[in-house]
Amino acid sequence: MKKIGIGLVGFGTVGTGVVRILQENKGVIEDRLGASIVLRKIADLDITTDRGVKVDRKILTTDAGELIDDPDISILIELIGGYDAAKEITLKAIGKGKHVVTANKALLAVHGDDIFGEAHSRGVDIGFEASVGGGIPVIRSIKEGLVANHIKVIFGILNGTSNYILSEMTSKGKEFGDVLKAAQNKGYAEADPTFDIEGIDTAHKLAILLSLAYGIKVDLGDIYVEGISKITPLDIEFAKELGYTIKLLAIAKEEGRRIEARVHPTLLPNCHLLSMVNEAYNAIFIDGDAVGSTMFYGKGAGMMPTASAVISDVLEICRNIMKGSSRRVPLLSFQHEKIRAQKIKNMSDVTSRYYLRFSAIDKPGVLSKISGILGNLDISISSVIQKGREVEGTVPIFMVTYEAREANIQKALKEIDDSPITLDNTVLIRIEEGGGNFGG
Amino acid sequence: MKKIGIGLVGFGTVGTGVVRILQENKGVIEDRLGASIVLRKIADLDITTDRGVKVDRKILTTDAGELIDDPDISILIELIGGYDAAKEITLKAIGKGKHVVTANKALLAVHGDDIFGEAHSRGVDIGFEASVGGGIPVIRSIKEGLVANHIKVIFGILNGTSNYILSEMTSKGKEFGDVLKAAQNKGYAEADPTFDIEGIDTAHKLAILLSLAYGIKVDLGDIYVEGISKITPLDIEFAKELGYTIKLLAIAKEEGRRIEARVHPTLLPNCHLLSMVNEAYNAIFIDGDAVGSTMFYGKGAGMMPTASAVISDVLEICRNIMKGSSRRVPLLSFQHEKIRAQKIKNMSDVTSRYYLRFSAIDKPGVLSKISGILGNLDISISSVIQKGREVEGTVPIFMVTYEAREANIQKALKEIDDSPITLDNTVLIRIEEGGGNFGG
Repeated sequence: MKKIGIGLVGFGTVGTGVVRILQENKGVIEDRLGASIVLRKIADLDITTDRGVKVDRKILTTDAGELIDDPDISILIELIGGYDAAKEITLKAIGKGKHVVTANKALLAVHGDDIFGEAHSRGVDIGFEASVGGGIPVIRSIKEGLVANHIKVIFGILNGTSNYILSEMTSKGKEFGDVLKAAQNKGYAEADPTFDIEGIDTAHKLAILLSLAYGIKVDLGDIYVEGISKITPLDIEFAKELGYTIKLLAIAKEEGRRIEARVHPTLLPNCHLLSMVNEAYNAIFIDGDAVGSTMFYGKGAGMMPTASAVISDVLEICRNIMKGSSRRVPLLSFQHEKIRAQKIKNMSDVTSRYYLRFSAIDKPGVLSKISGILGNLDISISSVIQKGREVEGTVPIFMVTYEAREANIQKALKEIDDSPITLDNTVLIRIEEGGGNFGG
Repeated sequence: MKKIGIGLVGFGTVGTGVVRILQENKGVIEDRLGASIVLRKIADLDITTDRGVKVDRKILTTDAGELIDDPDISILIELIGGYDAAKEITLKAIGKGKHVVTANKALLAVHGDDIFGEAHSRGVDIGFEASVGGGIPVIRSIKEGLVANHIKVIFGILNGTSNYILSEMTSKGKEFGDVLKAAQNKGYAEADPTFDIEGIDTAHKLAILLSLAYGIKVDLGDIYVEGISKITPLDIEFAKELGYTIKLLAIAKEEGRRIEARVHPTLLPNCHLLSMVNEAYNAIFIDGDAVGSTMFYGKGAGMMPTASAVISDVLEICRNIMKGSSRRVPLLSFQHEKIRAQKIKNMSDVTSRYYLRFSAIDKPGVLSKISGILGNLDISISSVIQKGREVEGTVPIFMVTYEAREANIQKALKEIDDSPITLDNTVLIRIEEGGGNFGG
């Protein structure tokens, strides 16, 4: 049987998962591939800690350069994460004509231009299925399964930590800070959780999906990003009463040739499939002009799910090596020369429905003033609820608007929050009604 | 730009969708593929009816043989359905070295052996993404995205008509027959709906999934098949009260080297994602040993979703033609020589939890007799509810069992139904708890 040599840089959690799958599922992988994958070398700064998998000590090295220089390694798996070292190793490997598989979304979102450009000119493949949605084969599905479609909408729950926190807050009525602390203790959230909870990781993944769906280069700074740290149990509870669940969504939409891209907490109808995606699971809802609504669901992180996606890329590249068909599918779904830079629609031009919670002073005429300001800016109110009594001198007023322009909403809220009729900043959460048909 | 010639046999609903996508999405398809797809000929018995798409009359023919003999056609799309003619055309096209794309699950489930065998020996590709789950890229996901996994469980909602009927019965409390009639009037169900409602179409699709997941040849007759025509609003309502939703599922499971495969109405927890899949939508839940729980959701039928899958196969084959990499991925996921015949586990050896509804006579001691018979056959009762009064001389008793052997349940029900303590046959519906984590 043909043997294909691979190397692994980064023997952490996912790297260990990769080794485990290559060992435990060797038989089924060979029966499918018709070739044998040989792990020739593993590089990591720490080559002494026991990872719980049996590995020949001779293949361990602290020098990634050894893998890059090894002519018997055709595919390099990069799992060290971060930016600089990962970029250097990846570019060097490509320079030597090696194919690269990576789970590093931050690297691709920030340095994708360099990496894909170099890979294109060297004619090698880059596998990055694990970079979005962990074990869910969503990148493959966009590049191949939905290739006949104009992608109209993408809604993604792409960060397991945020989704875990929101799910816990929703099911247990707990405060954000308490759930975050518990998640950190359980190892579900990092010591510095900023990337996850502030939507940055989700934005990185959205940038990758945008390239694949629309053939565009995206400036990360153009994507509006808002995290979940300001979500309160009060808003979750009220959303529920109104028939909605709060999720941190990556949103992409195409109308005409204008593309929207944003990351923020979103109210989704309770009956939307995405509202049922709980705990650390991820899901990507995609609406294509031909296929209609689709959804892809699974574990967005973790040792084995992420390794499952990494190995799927390794096998795809192995098949290309065996058939001499490297770059059979373009790196970013579109032919290289068709990829264009495109500005994302300015956030102030986006239209949406809005959930608003005003911390109004408990005096007559307040509601009339609020609705007057909204009305002057073309914002129509769909429903309004004032419920419960004074909390610290204010009464919460909950409002759902019809479709309105973001610029107008921001202007209205500024006017309202600057006036003496509210004592605290108004809470704003955008609403998406979904797409797909989730009736019943 | 390179041109690749294709031919279409069958200018019905899906065929029209294929033509529409090729026309309407020509730009985006070429930007992705880097080649132009040219539809050289369309064969159909009826070449006069207006399908609402503009087609050069010169490419229309009533003779499929013209397409088979056309050396400029590299890929033949077979969309005529049925068995004999479809098989003949497909085999002839393969014999001429043409690649074939088909949506015909019945053909593949029954004659797959001949067709894939011939394609293997001629070195051509067969695309059949549209044969299972319509527009959902589930075949691709099993063959490539989840390639690193042992597939442990598949639960599929694979028939839109059945799912539509069950959804309507569930949301509106209507009788099966009434919903079926309404569905027929709306064109959602065939005049002879047997294939759909009796689970046969679902079994065909399951047979295809079994080959892909396990590398086995399946005798269709080995798959236990039960349809939805006996489901009543009473059972749906009671299932709901117990926390379950009734779905027609295709089920595959692997334990050790033994494989279960069956199609029947199934009680699933309300919080399972599959329970939320309503109307004519399809969804396939797959549990892999590395990736864990995944789910793929979308439209399982219809002009444009099915055509979306057909075109995705056409593009995959085009890429292979352009790179000279035909049969890069084995036809049935496993290397041809690794595919083996395997018996499916006998239904009587399957274990499951059961929902039972007894039509008991209204006399003292009946429950004790029923539970005595069950107990003697090692069937433990998890819960029992007797509710409401006599209906036509009987009282319904609802019961949920713990895990029990199918053979024992059948023996017990025979004994109970043969005795004078029940007046009507006992209703049995199997329960699956799901997998995945759908808490909250």
